[in-house]
Amino acid sequence: MSSSAMPSSGTPSAGQHAVTVLGLGPMGRALASAFLAAGVRTTVWNRTPGRDGELVAAGAVSAASPEEAVAASPLTVVCLVNYDATDSVLRQEAVTDALKGRSVVNLSADAPDRARDTGRWADEHGIGYLDGAIMTPTPTIGTPAGVFLHSGPEALYREHRPVLDALGGTHTHLGEEVSRAAAYDIALLDIFWTSMTGYVHALAVARAEGISPTELAPFAQGIGAILPPLFQELAEEVENGTYSGEGNPLTSAVSTMAHIVHASEAHGIDAGVMRAAEDLARRTVALGHGAEGFTRIAEVLGRR
Amino acid sequence: MSSSAMPSSGTPSAGQHAVTVLGLGPMGRALASAFLAAGVRTTVWNRTPGRDGELVAAGAVSAASPEEAVAASPLTVVCLVNYDATDSVLRQEAVTDALKGRSVVNLSADAPDRARDTGRWADEHGIGYLDGAIMTPTPTIGTPAGVFLHSGPEALYREHRPVLDALGGTHTHLGEEVSRAAAYDIALLDIFWTSMTGYVHALAVARAEGISPTELAPFAQGIGAILPPLFQELAEEVENGTYSGEGNPLTSAVSTMAHIVHASEAHGIDAGVMRAAEDLARRTVALGHGAEGFTRIAEVLGRR
Ligand SMILES: NC(=O)c1ccc[n+]([C@@H]2O[C@H](COP(=O)([O-])OP(=O)(O)OC[C@H]3O[C@@H](n4cnc5c(N)ncnc54)[C@H](OP(=O)(O)O)[C@@H]3O)[C@@H](O)[C@H]2O)c1
Ligand SMILES: NC(=O)c1ccc[n+]([C@@H]2O[C@H](COP(=O)([O-])OP(=O)(O)OC[C@H]3O[C@@H](n4cnc5c(N)ncnc54)[C@H](OP(=O)(O)O)[C@@H]3O)[C@@H](O)[C@H]2O)c1
Repeated sequence: MSSSAMPSSGTPSAGQHAVTVLGLGPMGRALASAFLAAGVRTTVWNRTPGRDGELVAAGAVSAASPEEAVAASPLTVVCLVNYDATDSVLRQEAVTDALKGRSVVNLSADAPDRARDTGRWADEHGIGYLDGAIMTPTPTIGTPAGVFLHSGPEALYREHRPVLDALGGTHTHLGEEVSRAAAYDIALLDIFWTSMTGYVHALAVARAEGISPTELAPFAQGIGAILPPLFQELAEEVENGTYSGEGNPLTSAVSTMAHIVHASEAHGIDAGVMRAAEDLARRTVALGHGAEGFTRIAEVLGRR
Repeated sequence: MSSSAMPSSGTPSAGQHAVTVLGLGPMGRALASAFLAAGVRTTVWNRTPGRDGELVAAGAVSAASPEEAVAASPLTVVCLVNYDATDSVLRQEAVTDALKGRSVVNLSADAPDRARDTGRWADEHGIGYLDGAIMTPTPTIGTPAGVFLHSGPEALYREHRPVLDALGGTHTHLGEEVSRAAAYDIALLDIFWTSMTGYVHALAVARAEGISPTELAPFAQGIGAILPPLFQELAEEVENGTYSGEGNPLTSAVSTMAHIVHASEAHGIDAGVMRAAEDLARRTVALGHGAEGFTRIAEVLGRR
């Protein structure tokens, strides 16, 4: 592999690198563009043809098949919708054979058990495997704002880090356990999509009360701003098992949640998400934790 | 009323003001302390006796009954758990009679219809009524970090604003419609408690994957930091009815949500909140909005 000859320190000229990108959805195209912009020789492939026009115009090599694509570079970056798609592309005999002795960084999102399964498959076939997650949207790719998480063999990560750096942003290696990036990804997306659901629901409730989205937005931003420091504080609470309810006991949260359900449903607005949240909180109260803090729910959820 | 003699501009000496606080839970005590610290003559009452020890030591007058309490000041600030509690205190004949010709600012939290109902009751009994909401926790009271929302007659708000200013922080009058503060409150608490539920759930999922709360926290803070600007952007989208799914269609969110449900349940962790969120998203896709943005859900939720 040419990449094994790379200097281990300093910033090598990206021009000596080559990479293959499988998957040209919005994110795959953003990755390929960033590689090309950094001067990395880039080969691309997508299941549905015709997605690589702009990339080829920018210097990408278009491969006719995934096996041809992976054979063109020591490192293949996979960016497909999920691991069912990843499996259907990589676990074809010709592709698996072509990958032997090469490396894959899989940036497709899915649950951690799928990353572990893919790691096992890669080991069995002599394929170097890193699993990753992209935490920021397409416009951040190739800029300092991109956030990439990686996991898998540290040595392999170091070997390919210079090519990955062409994507810009922050790259963090979370550990050798291959599913770690997917586990962080799932937990962070859990926060993101739950919050987003709360927000669109709040916009609907506000509207029903005659408050326009842009009237609510500045106050919503105020709520958003108090979350990051609170996340740190509450993490420490859960880690120490303190769950202090001082000033804001779980019973008080339950009462507020009930008001939200009532106010939504009075307008005929589905409150299923808040009902499920209230149910979790009530079950935690029923276990005798009513005077404790909201984070006690994390501990109760984690019990088997 | 002494307050009607207050200068309408400039900062009058708080010493000429008097206020009554009904309810000495953590928040009522914080409010009363702030009034006392600002030199406002403060009368306090709480259903369960014995909660006013520190306040009386700091100069508060302890009233033996709610009717005695409200008779002591032109303005009564109510801070009880909800409006059932508010009703049970204020709608006693002796209390209602004592309030005639005086004013109430109700800072208890509840659904907007309860604020409207209380506004009607106050009108019928010749009581000046403002409804408010406190958006920040007890330690912010009396500091610049407090956030207070108010609604109801503008003239009444102006009259009592100098006393309310003793609480510190930012006070916003949202309009004459008395339920407006409660409506903002409910919408903002919807965002807050839904996000908090997402966070404690994420902590549980992370733990099951061997990630400690404080390992996840810095990345969770990163997610929290992207929410405020996104809230503004998405509010404009909903207001304009554009719902652009470019780069991140609803179908993609549904796929991510399914991974989160799968990853949680694989560890025996209840995923009821995310299941309800996924269900909302799937229903929106089923209505033909799969290629549009996540905010389309707000519009679908709001349909009757
Ligand atoms: N977009 C973002 O902002 C963003 C941010 C962070 C992470 N991600 C992650 O990045 C990954 C890619 O996302 P995306 O935005 O590019 O769009 P996407 O819709 O998640 O994925 C589209 C890609 O998956 C391919 N694909 C789907 N099913 C396939 C199958 N059975 N066999 C082969 N290929 C298949 C598509 O090929 P066809 O063209 O042939 O359908 C296309 O290349 C996802 O895991 C996503 O969660 C995206
Ligand atoms: N704490 C915060 O950080 C915070 C932040 C923003 C808004 N708020 C809002 O402020 C309000 C007060 O909150 P809190 O934190 O002080 O504690 P709380 O537990 O919500 O309310 C406690 C107060 O309600 C009284 N109460 C309950 N049921 C009653 C009834 N049936 N009749 C008469 N009084 C009754 C309690 O009296 P007893 O002592 O007799 O039980 C006590 O004075 C709530 O609406 C809350 O949502 C609180």
